[in-house]
Amino acid sequence: MSSNQPNELRLEHIIPALRNGKCRAQELIEEAISRHEVFGERLSAYRQWQPEDALCSAMAIDDAIAAGREPGLFAGVPVSAKDLFGLDGFQTFAGSPTALSEEWCSEGPVVKALKSAGGAFMGKTHMVEFAFGGIGTNPHWENPRNPWDSETYRVSGGSSSGAGVSICEGSAFVALGSDTAGSVRVPASWTGTVGLKTTKDRWSTAGLVPLSTSLDTPGTLTRNVSDAIVAFSVIDPGTTETFDKVLTEMRARRVSGLRIGVCKAMFDGCDPGVAECVDSNLGLLEKAGAIINDLEVSAIDEAGEIFSRGGLAAPEFAALINDTFVDWKVTLDPNVRARFDRMEAIPAVDFISRRNRLVELAAGVDAVFNDVDVLVGPTVPITAPTEKVVAVQEEYFRLNMAALRNTSVVNLLGLCAVSLPVGRDTSGIPVGFQLVARNNADAELLAISLACESVIGMATDVLGTPPLLVV
Amino acid sequence: MSSNQPNELRLEHIIPALRNGKCRAQELIEEAISRHEVFGERLSAYRQWQPEDALCSAMAIDDAIAAGREPGLFAGVPVSAKDLFGLDGFQTFAGSPTALSEEWCSEGPVVKALKSAGGAFMGKTHMVEFAFGGIGTNPHWENPRNPWDSETYRVSGGSSSGAGVSICEGSAFVALGSDTAGSVRVPASWTGTVGLKTTKDRWSTAGLVPLSTSLDTPGTLTRNVSDAIVAFSVIDPGTTETFDKVLTEMRARRVSGLRIGVCKAMFDGCDPGVAECVDSNLGLLEKAGAIINDLEVSAIDEAGEIFSRGGLAAPEFAALINDTFVDWKVTLDPNVRARFDRMEAIPAVDFISRRNRLVELAAGVDAVFNDVDVLVGPTVPITAPTEKVVAVQEEYFRLNMAALRNTSVVNLLGLCAVSLPVGRDTSGIPVGFQLVARNNADAELLAISLACESVIGMATDVLGTPPLLVV
Repeated sequence: MSSNQPNELRLEHIIPALRNGKCRAQELIEEAISRHEVFGERLSAYRQWQPEDALCSAMAIDDAIAAGREPGLFAGVPVSAKDLFGLDGFQTFAGSPTALSEEWCSEGPVVKALKSAGGAFMGKTHMVEFAFGGIGTNPHWENPRNPWDSETYRVSGGSSSGAGVSICEGSAFVALGSDTAGSVRVPASWTGTVGLKTTKDRWSTAGLVPLSTSLDTPGTLTRNVSDAIVAFSVIDPGTTETFDKVLTEMRARRVSGLRIGVCKAMFDGCDPGVAECVDSNLGLLEKAGAIINDLEVSAIDEAGEIFSRGGLAAPEFAALINDTFVDWKVTLDPNVRARFDRMEAIPAVDFISRRNRLVELAAGVDAVFNDVDVLVGPTVPITAPTEKVVAVQEEYFRLNMAALRNTSVVNLLGLCAVSLPVGRDTSGIPVGFQLVARNNADAELLAISLACESVIGMATDVLGTPPLLVV
Repeated sequence: MSSNQPNELRLEHIIPALRNGKCRAQELIEEAISRHEVFGERLSAYRQWQPEDALCSAMAIDDAIAAGREPGLFAGVPVSAKDLFGLDGFQTFAGSPTALSEEWCSEGPVVKALKSAGGAFMGKTHMVEFAFGGIGTNPHWENPRNPWDSETYRVSGGSSSGAGVSICEGSAFVALGSDTAGSVRVPASWTGTVGLKTTKDRWSTAGLVPLSTSLDTPGTLTRNVSDAIVAFSVIDPGTTETFDKVLTEMRARRVSGLRIGVCKAMFDGCDPGVAECVDSNLGLLEKAGAIINDLEVSAIDEAGEIFSRGGLAAPEFAALINDTFVDWKVTLDPNVRARFDRMEAIPAVDFISRRNRLVELAAGVDAVFNDVDVLVGPTVPITAPTEKVVAVQEEYFRLNMAALRNTSVVNLLGLCAVSLPVGRDTSGIPVGFQLVARNNADAELLAISLACESVIGMATDVLGTPPLLVV
């Protein structure tokens, strides 16, 4: 088993290979299991690892293919789900110490779409408790370890903390996550994977434990953009064509002529190597013909300021806990419990003002996308901190806000975004390149990301292999 | 001029009569002006009476018809607009003492739809300041007088306080109003007119001064259901056929077999004659073949309880004043100013809990409409109070909540409703029969209302002529 083999495989090749007998679903699942057996303990990606059903169904898939039956477009593809997705046969903890009630185990449209296409769920990944936090730590369960630092125990980013690690590990090709302020993109950035944060309401949040009903969005983490597009074609209700046609159409998109708006404010206060890495990749894109302009987007600045005051999610989260999970309040992460009173004290008039202002800002920012195809900047301005550093509460608060600074504004302004791995910072942690597109331009965003990836290179080539995954 | 002539006319007959020369637009407008000249001072329906443009365009319409050109389906129809609709050539006060800024004078889709079909705007009607109140009083301007009591000065209902009176007066066939908790239906009920509260987001609120962006809906007051349907056909973006076809289709709907759910709780604590009047009309409908069942709808009870705690509108209104109309705060109606601090003190978590719970309740109440076509009850449980009684603040608060009790739940649950005049209470004030239908069933609701009206009779026949309009 070669350490970086999974990164070299793409679903667009594996899926046809399964059909023409060049590979078998059972092999695919066994390889995922085997990688988890080797790296699982070291990385702690999973809250519940239960690959038995996936293995059984892989055998059935192979039989179906051998008998000439179509097994579903996602048949045999190993998938992980953040432990806030309801999934048959699994309890749902949402990172809490106590299992939530049965209703939170029901499968919603995103899981159903993957399952009905044959997707093989390997397990449920760790997450920040109730998804409220961007660092990736959880006081009740093990913290997934960032596989890019073999010296110190660094966090993997949250709240979908196990999602990116499951991709690195090779036990899943697609990791389902959710993103309310950056919870897909921060772990994607810090683990060197591709994170897609969909437009609000494009994918249903039914079957997910909510955090902020105004902002929650499902999303995916994958090894590369091509895999993200394959998963997107299966899940997205607005995409009717099969992934091969979608990919062919998207490949027509070129970097040449791509209008990129660089959000200068997103480069402020970056940790060493982050801004430099994004800048040098902008250089590559410019050389390939992209039209690059620096922009000051006041709506982003103002949305960031609203985020710093608790945005919409803080009071929505507090209401959710009080109304639906009051028995879970006493055991809440001390980092969250410490701020709970403040979240509860926000007046409704302030919440409503923020909401109304964000509607205005979102309407205004739409016009920015008449002049640029995407807005870009570093996904996360800071490097993944060590577990030790974020054990200090004040540091946790500061770094949590810093980690979410560039991503949260995308949710608040109703946009969609992709985080693309483009290099490593001076601590050796991957750097994410955030591409932000207008409301509901998710498919166009993926096409642009694919074009950029073709210039920049896929994660395997750009980043190499995570040190903790070298066998 | 006969006192009740306008009530006998229906737009469905007038519009063809204009085209075949049986009547002229100029006559129609002159008649409206003449009625206002006789009754205007007595009734105080209008904040701004400006019929000059309407008269000019009526002449142009008559010329167009004479020349064989189509003048538009609403050409020459006198319309009034509540003074929160932006309207070219008019200032917007929204019931406040000081004109709002220019941006609030812009016409939105509802006004534009009527205007582009030739609707003739006669003036802007009085309203409760910023639409925040159901009684109909305003400390800055004259209170429209309820034309059904010639002895005492009774209120006409709010917040669209001048709207129903403009219809009674005969100076408009269609009065545009807005309804956040009952502001179309309460004045419709107390003035003996037909009030339509549309489903949220079916008609755009652009061009209206907001009160509660979660709940505001435009609506109409008319003399009868047929006129409401004609106006609906012109305004409603989901209705593509012309009114004659719409009316023909709707007339196929019969009372026989109509499944009516009677909301028992809506009959509690009614003033003398109100419940009795609604009951006796239910008897008429049952005799005509309607299937009538008493219902206890727990979602309505719970929504009512949420309303009694300030619902969504109180904090949304307070945020609006603070953010957009802070200069108008100092002059706010003492009845509102007295409660402002309390509205500002509502915590965001409570607002969010209410909002989330209402989403659940709305989803649940939808199933009720699998078993019944409409829910019914008295539109307003109380009679229109005298100006003197509501001058006492404590009485105002009590009666305001009572007036809105049966209507506010419709807004909170995302439903649509019609108030149909069905008789008079023991004070001689008209009684409204509220028909409530499921979310976005506005067209079906109008068809049902038309069928019920055909059994019960039109306002003119059922109520007679308002005492103050007897010449």
